Amino acid sequence: MLDRPTQSPLYKIANPDSIAFFGASNNIGRMGTNLLLSVMSGGFPGRIYPVHPSESKVQGLEAFPSAADLPETPDLAVMVLPTRIVNSTLEECGRKGIHHAIVVSGGFKEIGSDGASLEEEMKAICQRYGIRVLGPNGLGVANLHHPLNTTFIPVEGRPGVIGLASQSGSFVTQMFNYLARRGVNFSTAFSVGNEADLDLVDALEYLGGDPNTRVIALYVEGITRGRRFVEAARAISRQKPIVALYVGGSDTGRKAGRSHTGAMAGPDPLYDGVFKQSGVIRAESVAEMFDFARVLGRLPQPAGNRVVVQTNSGGPGAAAADACGRAGLALPALAQSTIEALGEYLPHTGSAGNPVDITFSQNWDDVYQPVPQVLLDDPNSDMLLIYFLTPTEIIRRGMEKMGVPAERLDEETVRHAEACAQKALEVFQNAAKPMVGFTWRGMDEPFSQALLQGGFPLFSDPKSAARALGAMVEYGRLKRKLETSEI
Amino acid sequence: MLDRPTQSPLYKIANPDSIAFFGASNNIGRMGTNLLLSVMSGGFPGRIYPVHPSESKVQGLEAFPSAADLPETPDLAVMVLPTRIVNSTLEECGRKGIHHAIVVSGGFKEIGSDGASLEEEMKAICQRYGIRVLGPNGLGVANLHHPLNTTFIPVEGRPGVIGLASQSGSFVTQMFNYLARRGVNFSTAFSVGNEADLDLVDALEYLGGDPNTRVIALYVEGITRGRRFVEAARAISRQKPIVALYVGGSDTGRKAGRSHTGAMAGPDPLYDGVFKQSGVIRAESVAEMFDFARVLGRLPQPAGNRVVVQTNSGGPGAAAADACGRAGLALPALAQSTIEALGEYLPHTGSAGNPVDITFSQNWDDVYQPVPQVLLDDPNSDMLLIYFLTPTEIIRRGMEKMGVPAERLDEETVRHAEACAQKALEVFQNAAKPMVGFTWRGMDEPFSQALLQGGFPLFSDPKSAARALGAMVEYGRLKRKLETSEI
Repeated sequence: MLDRPTQSPLYKIANPDSIAFFGASNNIGRMGTNLLLSVMSGGFPGRIYPVHPSESKVQGLEAFPSAADLPETPDLAVMVLPTRIVNSTLEECGRKGIHHAIVVSGGFKEIGSDGASLEEEMKAICQRYGIRVLGPNGLGVANLHHPLNTTFIPVEGRPGVIGLASQSGSFVTQMFNYLARRGVNFSTAFSVGNEADLDLVDALEYLGGDPNTRVIALYVEGITRGRRFVEAARAISRQKPIVALYVGGSDTGRKAGRSHTGAMAGPDPLYDGVFKQSGVIRAESVAEMFDFARVLGRLPQPAGNRVVVQTNSGGPGAAAADACGRAGLALPALAQSTIEALGEYLPHTGSAGNPVDITFSQNWDDVYQPVPQVLLDDPNSDMLLIYFLTPTEIIRRGMEKMGVPAERLDEETVRHAEACAQKALEVFQNAAKPMVGFTWRGMDEPFSQALLQGGFPLFSDPKSAARALGAMVEYGRLKRKLETSEI
Repeated sequence: MLDRPTQSPLYKIANPDSIAFFGASNNIGRMGTNLLLSVMSGGFPGRIYPVHPSESKVQGLEAFPSAADLPETPDLAVMVLPTRIVNSTLEECGRKGIHHAIVVSGGFKEIGSDGASLEEEMKAICQRYGIRVLGPNGLGVANLHHPLNTTFIPVEGRPGVIGLASQSGSFVTQMFNYLARRGVNFSTAFSVGNEADLDLVDALEYLGGDPNTRVIALYVEGITRGRRFVEAARAISRQKPIVALYVGGSDTGRKAGRSHTGAMAGPDPLYDGVFKQSGVIRAESVAEMFDFARVLGRLPQPAGNRVVVQTNSGGPGAAAADACGRAGLALPALAQSTIEALGEYLPHTGSAGNPVDITFSQNWDDVYQPVPQVLLDDPNSDMLLIYFLTPTEIIRRGMEKMGVPAERLDEETVRHAEACAQKALEVFQNAAKPMVGFTWRGMDEPFSQALLQGGFPLFSDPKSAARALGAMVEYGRLKRKLETSEI
């Protein structure tokens, strides 16, 4: 495992001081232009040198006719060029003394034997000049802390703690918005493309040593350096959790992966074994990979697998209890002290079992505070899972009947929702145990957004919430096994 | 199976001409008041008689001191009363000749032996007076076509085709917003509560005979009348699909269900057998139950299990291919005629395999139309699954660079997104095969909403989309088996 990220060959790719940019122009319709615009609008603090055969300015920056003409030797070259001129341009870079490159262009190994020959040629050039390449056929890197974003989509939201190594660029770019809406974000994300040189394992090792990364997500179509992967992952898992989505295990997924990046996939049980041996938690879907990452990266580690479910309605409570059971969690009886402390909040139709069903208490806001605090204090349990009913329409109707003027109803409803979320957040932010929730309301509503942007992991379904808690328990188990060398 | 819904004991409960309402007042903080307001604001076309011991008007309606004082014998009594006066009020109703009641009040079998005695007493009263009761401890009914909504949350959106029979009221009320955001809705939804008299099977039978219902969803904590359930479901499944979520199969779920409605659950394999025998498709989560229902209720039935995956990015394509394989779907090679027709839309980095990866063609809008039409016309496949990248930020940036004034950027971006969705909808609305899609963008964004409100099933993850298609294939298989008496 790396002690410092500067030891990684990816360091200067993710943290360059200067970049030569090949393939951007003044035509906004071109992919290369969009990548350059992302670097510029993303706040990259270093120097950018567009290289263009005819234009003297590109997107307002001074442009240079070739690598040889650059006023300095940049740390990194980014290429979004037609396939046929990629290799010759790499040679130019090599002659200039550039030692790191991101090749975004496709048309290599992934399209068949002609492309594969071109890729072999690329490798030879890189070896000759000592160039480390990320790609081809990938989107490069988004390091939100540097910041540097070489993809064609702008970053949204603040820098986060999720490191990503991905054999698809979409799981970098399409997740900027996806994660930001959930109040989380990448630390650094790599799109490794065809892995002609630097690969998924290099990205994993970089992220393992990166202090901004608290959890690592891997999108895997196939791992080439299996032994090195296991060694690296075993060392890193003892420090920070790794979650993987492997899509090459089915016939259909294996074939699709091969035509995408040419990766060699293996059967599901093989990868299951590799992941288990390495302390890696396997996710069943893209959504689940990021669900797991957002709890593992930000919540305290649970002491055990015992969860209390809080609800004000029987069905969601039962569905959550069932989902917990299937996710390997136990629902202990509450301690006597907890039952006593709950007393004043529970109407006679409620239940101090587990799920705790407070139905509709006199004060509806009890569900945000203090009930969650009482349940977090329960000595018999390790985690708290809350169902949020968020009865927006009733609050609104109530305000209307109480005489709030029509033109202020929207504003007052939002204010109430945000105040409720704030109460729950106060409990959450001081909690020493993991606390998550679910609701069937939209993730974009004021209540949900207030919770999510406050760091609270809110899910759209009890199953997702329960499985995320299950992943935390699983990580604890794997970590203990690695520490005691049981696996 | 019922020929007409009027044969069901639930008919007058879901379609009353007149209602006596017990437990509403002029206090907006009370549950009963909220239920009455839902009935009123929901557009119930019949007569409503609030019964209140002291008020002469309730929410602007003329109120009556007791059932005996009502000016007619209403079809239905709705009760949201303190537990202790429910049975005596039911007796009053019986003496007045009222034959149908919804009892919302809790405090019966679900709280233990004292409540169970009260519930036995209730049954005796109902038998004595010939009253058919839905409840207690349930929210009654939402018939969006009548319309009648006795729950405490207002309905959102237009009437739909999903019938629901639920052992939890939350899966009625909380889904009004959830389904409306997805462009679908209930036809009629029943919350059966403790099932003292009318039960889940009665609701299933009503929905089976209801012409507004095209698919039935069941939230199940435990089925009491097993044999009747199987008979009813087998008959109905031949006409319309039934999807069930069963939460009583895990230890944790079984216990939670018992303290919720007192339902007797059984082990998972038992219910698996019951569902299979009955032609019922089992969902793994609440979200999935409604995912299945929205495709089964509205898309044409696929001829087989062969799906084409359309993408413009390798990773989402591979993830979708893998999810399809795991959902029992096959990805056939495209017919030669399809490959030829695709030719003009495919750049050299694209793939006419399956997934079809059109990467970024010259015209980005090809992904909405005509490419989906070409793929739907493929003679080798039965379904189409599309990944939508929806690059909102790039469109916006492009418009900005092309000189669209800042104050019109929002409007123009939305207009573009909606125009793209419209193109896809034109293909969808004429499709004779199932067509679904997924995106990682928010379901509340203009593009997603335009698709969803146009009836297109859009999902947040390839796994959900693939499993929904898998459920359609499974229904076809079950239906054929029922028709040939193989099960």
